[in-house]
Parts: sequence; C-alpha cells; structure tokens
Amino acid sequence: MTQGPPETIVIIRANGARKGSRLGPGATPEAIERDAPSTPDALAELLGADLTAVNAIIHDRLSSSVALIPDLAAYLIDAGGKRVRPMITLAAANALGGATDGTRMLAAAVEFIHTATLLHDDVVDESVLRRGKKSAHKIWGNAASVLVGDFLFARSFTLMVDADDLAVLGVLANASSTIAEGEVLQLSSANDADASLDHYMRIISAKTAALFAAAARVGAMSAGGTAAQADAFEAYGRNLGLAFQLVDDALDYGGASAVMGKNTGDDFREGKITLPVILARETGDDDERGFWRRVMGGGEHRPADFEHAVAILRKRNAITRTIDFARVYANAAREALTDMPDTSWRSSLTDLADFVVERAH
Amino acid sequence: MTQGPPETIVIIRANGARKGSRLGPGATPEAIERDAPSTPDALAELLGADLTAVNAIIHDRLSSSVALIPDLAAYLIDAGGKRVRPMITLAAANALGGATDGTRMLAAAVEFIHTATLLHDDVVDESVLRRGKKSAHKIWGNAASVLVGDFLFARSFTLMVDADDLAVLGVLANASSTIAEGEVLQLSSANDADASLDHYMRIISAKTAALFAAAARVGAMSAGGTAAQADAFEAYGRNLGLAFQLVDDALDYGGASAVMGKNTGDDFREGKITLPVILARETGDDDERGFWRRVMGGGEHRPADFEHAVAILRKRNAITRTIDFARVYANAAREALTDMPDTSWRSSLTDLADFVVERAH
Repeated sequence: MTQGPPETIVIIRANGARKGSRLGPGATPEAIERDAPSTPDALAELLGADLTAVNAIIHDRLSSSVALIPDLAAYLIDAGGKRVRPMITLAAANALGGATDGTRMLAAAVEFIHTATLLHDDVVDESVLRRGKKSAHKIWGNAASVLVGDFLFARSFTLMVDADDLAVLGVLANASSTIAEGEVLQLSSANDADASLDHYMRIISAKTAALFAAAARVGAMSAGGTAAQADAFEAYGRNLGLAFQLVDDALDYGGASAVMGKNTGDDFREGKITLPVILARETGDDDERGFWRRVMGGGEHRPADFEHAVAILRKRNAITRTIDFARVYANAAREALTDMPDTSWRSSLTDLADFVVERAH
Repeated sequence: MTQGPPETIVIIRANGARKGSRLGPGATPEAIERDAPSTPDALAELLGADLTAVNAIIHDRLSSSVALIPDLAAYLIDAGGKRVRPMITLAAANALGGATDGTRMLAAAVEFIHTATLLHDDVVDESVLRRGKKSAHKIWGNAASVLVGDFLFARSFTLMVDADDLAVLGVLANASSTIAEGEVLQLSSANDADASLDHYMRIISAKTAALFAAAARVGAMSAGGTAAQADAFEAYGRNLGLAFQLVDDALDYGGASAVMGKNTGDDFREGKITLPVILARETGDDDERGFWRRVMGGGEHRPADFEHAVAILRKRNAITRTIDFARVYANAAREALTDMPDTSWRSSLTDLADFVVERAH
C-alpha cells in the first residue's frame, strides 16, 4: 500500500482510486483535499441537519442549575470528539428510511453514555490527557468527574424515555451494563502479564464494541427496521467497534508508522495487556517473555522500557498483525451490511469501516 | 416526651400507647420487645414474601461472570442496610391494592440506584466506614467502586425495562439525574461556611428526598394508583426523605442524646455545612461565627474542634431544633397519606415517619 507522510490518511478504494486527507489539530483548510474528505467528515457532511440537531439536543440536555455540570461536561463534549457513535445511530436510521426525532434523541443519549464512560475511565486510569487536552478530573478533581459522569448517564436515560420506545431503551441499558462489566474485567486483569487473547477480546467486546453495536441497532430500530435489519446493523456496529479498539491499541504503540507522541504509551504505563503485546509475547523468545512479564506485571518501569517494547513489537510484526486483525473485523462490518438497501448511507458506513483501519497507518 | 436510655427508641402512639425497641449492633434478641418491633422491622414483617422476593431479585441481578462485581456489590448490599427505600415502594403498592411482579422489580431497581450512589459517595467523600464496616473502596479501591457503581446503575435500568412501564422508568431516570445534581451541588459548596438554609434544603431535596419520593411514587403507579394517589405517595416520600436526612445530619453530631461514636463527625471533617451548623451559626455570637468560619471553611482542624462544635450546637439548641425541623417534615409525610385507603400499610408508612424522627433520640 502506498503510504503518505504520517499525518495523511491514504485509502485505496476498491476501484483503485486513492484519496487522502490531512487530519489532526495541525490541519489547515488548504491542506485538506475538499473533494475527498476523510470519512467521518464525509459522514458528518452527509448527516448535515441531523447532526446539528443532535448537537443541539446534547447542549440542551447538559443544562443544569448546578453550573459545574454543564461546565465540566461541555469541556469534554466540545473537546473535538468526532461523534462517531451518534453518527452511526443517525446513519443507520437514514439507511433504513430516515432518522426521526426519536433517532436524534437516541443519538444524543449514545453520546452521553460514551461521555460518562470517558469521565469515569479517566478517573479509573488516572489519565492526564483526553482528546489532547488536560483531563477533566485534572481540572475539577475526581469527585466532580465521577458525579458529572453519573449525571450524564442518568440524563441519557431521560433522553431515552423521551424517545418513547422501551425496546430501544432496553438495548442501551443492556449495553451500559455490559460496558461496566468490561471495564471491571479490564481493571481486574491489569498487570496480568499472562492475559490471553480470549480474555482481551472479551474485554474489548464489552467495553467498546457493545456501545457501537447498540448505537447501530437502535438507529435501525428507530427507523422501523425489521428484526433482520436491526441484527445486521448491530453486527456492523459490533465489528466496527472491535476494529476501532484494535486500531486504538495499535496506535498506543505508534501504529504502523511508529509515530510516537502524547497519545502513545498509556496502555503500557497502565499495565493494560492489549493485542500487540499478546501477539509479540506469543512469538517472542525467552528474553522477550521475561521483559513482558516484568514491564506488564506491575513492576517499576525503567526509562528505556517503552522504547524497547516498541522495538520488540516491530521485530515481531505485532503492530502490523494487530492491524490485520482490525481489518478482518472491518471487513466483517462491511459484510454485515451487504443485504441492506444500496444507498449513500450504506456507502458512508462501509467507508467508515475502511477509515477506522487506515487511520492506523 | 418520655425518653428512654440512648439506645432505646420510644414512640408515643396517637392513642398514648408506648413502644420501645433496642436497636443497633449491640442489640440482643432478648433486649427486643418482640411484640413491639421498631417500625422498619414491623414493615419488613408485614411485607414478608414481597421483601424476600425483592432480595432474591437483587441477588439474581448482581450476577456477572466478572466475579469482582457480585463480590463488591454484595459486600455492601448485605452489610445490614434496612432496605427502607424498596420497602416504601412495596408498601405504597400494597396500600393501593397490591404489589405486582413489576413493583418488586422496581423496588430492587430503587435499591440498586441507592447502592450505586453509596459506592460513589464513599469515593467522593473518602469515607472509611459504611454501615459500620470498612468502605468498599478501602478494600477494592476507588476504581472498582466507581465501575461497580456504574454497573449497578445500568442494571437498575435493565430491571426497570423488565418492569415494562416507560412512565415509571421516567420517574426513576429523573430522580437519578436529580440525585447526581444534588451531589454535585453539595460538592461545589463544601467548605462554604456561609451556605444558607435554602442552599442546604436544595441539596438534601435532591440528593436524598428525590429517591424517597420516586420510590413511593413508582410503588403507587405500579399498583395502578390514580394520578392523585401517585402525587400523594410522592409527597409522602419527599417529606419522609427530608426528615430522614435532617435526622441523619443531627445524628452526625450525636443526636439529641449526644452519643458520639464511629458514625459521628463525618460532615464536620468533610466541611459539609448541615442544618445544625446553619442554625447555630445564625444564633451564635461573633466568637462562634468565627469558629464556624474557621472549621467549616476548609482550614486545618485542631484536636478539640469537634468537641467544641458539639458544645456550641448544644448551647444553641441546634440539634433539638434540627430534629424539630425533621418532625415537621415527618408530619407532612403523615398528612400526605390522609386521603389514602385506611389499611395496615398506610399505618406502617405513617409509623415509619415517626420512627425516622425518633431515632434521633
């Protein structure tokens, strides 16, 4: 695959056409090839008024006479998240006939659930940065982050009640409970240097893929999709979510191009065993396995440990193989939509699956 | 009012009959006058199979393949909480014709919401003890308490979905969001030595009374009560919740009998301005106001500060006046049920309102 400079996303289309777009905070309008936007941006453009409406609902439902709540929540919500999950809800509904008021409220509810988990995750992981800015708990403290997360979570349910569909609410309630289980499972196995592939897949299925799956499913349901269509979109979301998390975990070690920066090394520091490490461990020699046991087992880290970890991962092709894994799930996400109506919405969603993998390069 | 020794609850009935029961961890079966149980126990007895069913639902819905979840949650849930809130839900339904399967699921959901807030509160307040045992976060850590709280909160909504009534779910979703607002408000005004009575009432209305109100309301709704009946039970719950919190805040300074122990002094240490302090501050002299400003304003505490605070509260009758406040709300709770059917359920609920105040002695 032809590969551009680190900040440029290059996607090879099925027809051989190539598109690229410069992303990240350093992007200038001139640098973006406007006829070939990256797919989250393309999807946002296609969604237009729907997405604007969802953003309005989000800000409206953040309101509280307790000023700290909208201050803290808006800080995170406006920090440049791409609204990938609510966009999936909206696109799924549009792919099956059209987003309704209910769809837009559910999309906002999905973003609230996601934001609540980010706030709590940052407390749990003691993360310093989120979306390139100081984490909320570093500014307002752990207590405020926990409580505002609770508020957002509760508000997501009042939004769902207003969307007025108990079946849909059940899907998101189940997803919320699964996310919490995934987070607890991850916490229980931090610093377990012997964590298995199965164990890892179980964690990411719960903590990440469950919300993507529910976001897509409730979009389909809110548009009156059939049971088979709801299942298809759920499968799309689940596979996309797995691909998304696998790529995130590859990017934490610099991705395919090994670009290190402020968003790398978190998993390593926190002793979270992710697929790159599992793959490298399984094909590594005794020295390497000893290294992984020491650095992922909860011991003190030495200054050069992270650099050495990345060197082993590259030697063992563990990043590339992780991205290959992600591509398998992204393809499964595409496949899941094969029998859905052939619309620009479906293309946007399948493009998104490609994008999710290609951002690893 | 005739008053027994500190551990004995004495309630003067409307007909002049007197009952007493020795409570607390030191109680022995022999010490309890079995023909005159304390009202939470009487209510539990009256509820019988309903309450057993709710406990079974609670333990069933704690189940998870992630062992840490039931371990941590059951530790707190089995620690001797009296299930006051779910009992209110059950009794309200029974007072209006009978608890249904839905009522029992809602009662369990109410206890889950309550338990989730306790787990998060203990993290927020850095509390060492809860229900006389070491707090969960002191055993399993803050991260686990936050995440298991999230799990319980999510599970409360899956229970509500199974109860299959969107209107009822909306009541509890709103209450959950109000609780979080109350907690954030309390957090934002910790160490504000000048906090007003209004501000305090706003906090306790949200953080405590909202769930009591919702618990009673959803009980009434689940039994098919009319809108007026649901309003009456909601008013009962709200007033009872206010009385409950006022008494808790009086007990944190030893209550009417000034019995100090491991459950006293938390609010003082945490700089939470509660009604006893507000009342004492407003009738105190300059020296006392200076004292309150120093000790509640976030400064260092000296060894004798708590003892001195209690001495001022007693001098200014602030504990007694706080209990008088609580009695006003307990009476309002009784009054709210005046037009409800005259059953043993109604008597139990009005007895509970008396009990809530009398435990302050």
